[in-house]
Amino acid sequence: MQKVNGYYKRPLPSPPALDLHSPNGKQLFLEAIQNGTMECFVKLISFFQTQSEPTFCGLATLSMVLNALAIDPCRRWKGSWRWFDESMLDLDCCVPLEKVKAEGITFSELLCLAQSVGAKVEAFHASRSNIEEFRKYVVECSTSEDHHVILSYHRAALKQTGNGHISPIGGYHGGKDMVLILDVARFKYPPHWVPLEALWEGMSCVDTTGQTRGFMVLSRPHREPSMLDTLA
Amino acid sequence: MQKVNGYYKRPLPSPPALDLHSPNGKQLFLEAIQNGTMECFVKLISFFQTQSEPTFCGLATLSMVLNALAIDPCRRWKGSWRWFDESMLDLDCCVPLEKVKAEGITFSELLCLAQSVGAKVEAFHASRSNIEEFRKYVVECSTSEDHHVILSYHRAALKQTGNGHISPIGGYHGGKDMVLILDVARFKYPPHWVPLEALWEGMSCVDTTGQTRGFMVLSRPHREPSMLDTLA
Repeated sequence: MQKVNGYYKRPLPSPPALDLHSPNGKQLFLEAIQNGTMECFVKLISFFQTQSEPTFCGLATLSMVLNALAIDPCRRWKGSWRWFDESMLDLDCCVPLEKVKAEGITFSELLCLAQSVGAKVEAFHASRSNIEEFRKYVVECSTSEDHHVILSYHRAALKQTGNGHISPIGGYHGGKDMVLILDVARFKYPPHWVPLEALWEGMSCVDTTGQTRGFMVLSRPHREPSMLDTLA
Repeated sequence: MQKVNGYYKRPLPSPPALDLHSPNGKQLFLEAIQNGTMECFVKLISFFQTQSEPTFCGLATLSMVLNALAIDPCRRWKGSWRWFDESMLDLDCCVPLEKVKAEGITFSELLCLAQSVGAKVEAFHASRSNIEEFRKYVVECSTSEDHHVILSYHRAALKQTGNGHISPIGGYHGGKDMVLILDVARFKYPPHWVPLEALWEGMSCVDTTGQTRGFMVLSRPHREPSMLDTLA
């Protein structure tokens, strides 16, 4: 028998997580739809993507949110098409792509990228926010198509293998106080519900800069119709 | 003002299509969930991806369905991970990746690839099937998580720009007899509902081989537990 190395996915530690595709996960999904806290889901899920490198969780998360917000990169991607993928987020003014490939990306570098490509961003390090404020933004964004939450957290708080990770939120279940994470490491874990409290704990860890992780809320900038709009 | 070339998406011709994100599109989505004909959606949508080249619609469609069916490529993709993306579908016995990049892929070549990587496949050229049989498979697969339909059709039947195209089905609305297409050209069109009849018309066109296009139904092969299972 041929020996095959490596991993085909990893078992999702449950609890605390709950696989979206499990019967209970689907039940939460239906209840959250009925309660109006999956409004972000239908839009964001259409742009769900896999991080193309083991260190590209931040870049994949940002490009899927930028595409969901219909922000035009104003540069060609492939063929005639303008579109965000990780390769379009190579901005030396924030962090070169090669550095991200080698080391991953910090919360502050990701914030720089998001702002530089034209998103409106509100960013919150966990140390300068609190769980109530986080929950308020989760609820607001889950009931809207126009705002998306990006999380930076440590996987250990969810008993998951790996270290720091970045992914967007796909919805919220108020009754259970659980957040749906659209994990961009799709080769590893399926989308999964996690308790908001455990997630907050993972966001309160410090990253390599010595600062706590946190969350950011992205939306389209409000402005007069411009070149971007006429081209879109 | 800087001139920006190329396209940021294209307007979806509607009718015949209906944008999933429109109010009516979301209403059909909710009704179809309630009627049990979106069972394929929750599984498949978690693996939705963008074709990485303008000619890779078939490869992107196949890799998302293989990932949704949890078929192990038994080869490493990136890092320690085994996972399908288009680059993993470079099989000279069917069609070399460079040829697909230059010319796209035919229905028969895609069938060869799907079978070679271990999927169970039933394939139907439109000329050897009929619209009732197609509808029967659409209903069966929409009410199941374990079977997915891949379509090969000509975009002209849907009044869309472009030529032949390949994408999977994400669900079905029985009352309207409309199919949800998860278009892998996500830089061009959003997921959209289309009348099954118009789609059948697009599948009845011939491709470059002189044969009609059609559909194929993919599932995991039934077999004894083997290396693939123990590794998964």
